Amino acid sequence: MPESQATVDGFKRAAAERAVALITDGMTVGLGSGTTAEFALAALATRIAGGLRMSGVPTSERTAGLARQHGIPLMPFDGRPIDVAIDGADEIERDTLNLIKGGGGSLVREKLIARASRRFIVIADERKLVDRLGVHGPLPVALLPFTRQLVLRELAALGAPGTIRQADGRDVVTDDGLIIADCICGAITDARVLATRIAAIPGVVDSGLLLGLVAEAIVAGRTGVRVLSPGK
Amino acid sequence: MPESQATVDGFKRAAAERAVALITDGMTVGLGSGTTAEFALAALATRIAGGLRMSGVPTSERTAGLARQHGIPLMPFDGRPIDVAIDGADEIERDTLNLIKGGGGSLVREKLIARASRRFIVIADERKLVDRLGVHGPLPVALLPFTRQLVLRELAALGAPGTIRQADGRDVVTDDGLIIADCICGAITDARVLATRIAAIPGVVDSGLLLGLVAEAIVAGRTGVRVLSPGK
Repeated sequence: MPESQATVDGFKRAAAERAVALITDGMTVGLGSGTTAEFALAALATRIAGGLRMSGVPTSERTAGLARQHGIPLMPFDGRPIDVAIDGADEIERDTLNLIKGGGGSLVREKLIARASRRFIVIADERKLVDRLGVHGPLPVALLPFTRQLVLRELAALGAPGTIRQADGRDVVTDDGLIIADCICGAITDARVLATRIAAIPGVVDSGLLLGLVAEAIVAGRTGVRVLSPGK
Repeated sequence: MPESQATVDGFKRAAAERAVALITDGMTVGLGSGTTAEFALAALATRIAGGLRMSGVPTSERTAGLARQHGIPLMPFDGRPIDVAIDGADEIERDTLNLIKGGGGSLVREKLIARASRRFIVIADERKLVDRLGVHGPLPVALLPFTRQLVLRELAALGAPGTIRQADGRDVVTDDGLIIADCICGAITDARVLATRIAAIPGVVDSGLLLGLVAEAIVAGRTGVRVLSPGK
């Protein structure tokens, strides 16, 4: 029986609060994008009201706007290491903790900030846990609009045919001026090879595959909140 | 003694006309960007007036506009192979015919179209021939504006410190919404390694190093027009 939206939101909130409890005074914190990451903004606001001092590095313009509304101090991403980043994911592979990200369209900035962070924590409700990436939803790929036809042809040749994401009859354009191809992969057996092949397509800026970067996954569901480490 | 501008323009025109003489009916032709490539547009217009049928694939909005003024039929870049591409370069390495491109800011589209072409012809006046890339001018690198500070730090760590190209006190923004770091490399001893390392920096879309793609270089100077092949 599928969970109600209110129940799922409760799981997301529980995972977000557990992650935010790890933040200590003086930290720089990568602020993810998407519905689960937005629960972390609310949890951070509560802790800041309680005296926590931290600086947030947002992964999207939307997150920056929400963080400002919550009174979270922000700093621009300058490429220096970030203490902790907290973000959601579209899919989390159970044993590897490899991720598919980018359903929200911010995959390029999300991956940059995940890579720059000393400790990258993914938060999710348990529906996001999968045995194998690629089965449940599309793999987003961010590309230069000019290269649309070339990239779609090359993705199809790799066995990952895609369509350009649209909203209201127009291409969705990211904060970085990119468009998104949502690709149907099926079960991804070698994510590293696929990520490398996609990245090598001229005009592709990045894919939503995020590999080997997760320090821990905080996953909430009916049985409570679990903290998973890669390879466990 | 440096050549006069009129003399150099004559060399550029001579190289462009020699390249355009290779175009035959029905071809798709990649149209480069920059002062030398613009002489090829004029030469193509003359041949079209004489009955040549061809379709041009422009490497920049500027080139597209000039081509339209010249009455050159255009088609969008759709990723399919292009018969011949003709473009200039900032530097041409004498033995390898490896190039530095991007002084004009169109390096991403120029490289895409060079890669897609069955026969890529670089045209230049002889001042562009160098013994080793990187000595005479900067290496342009195109990047997402959001990643500016990260990329500049990583480029400096690679021994290729860069500054963001500006005009009239503002960042120059390419047709693809990217900014350009002009990097001081000194003599580039292993261009392939450098290109790979730069491409691996998160946020970098492409560098101006164009390696192993030139079918022939048509170079004009005091002693006439020479056609160079790689490795000769």
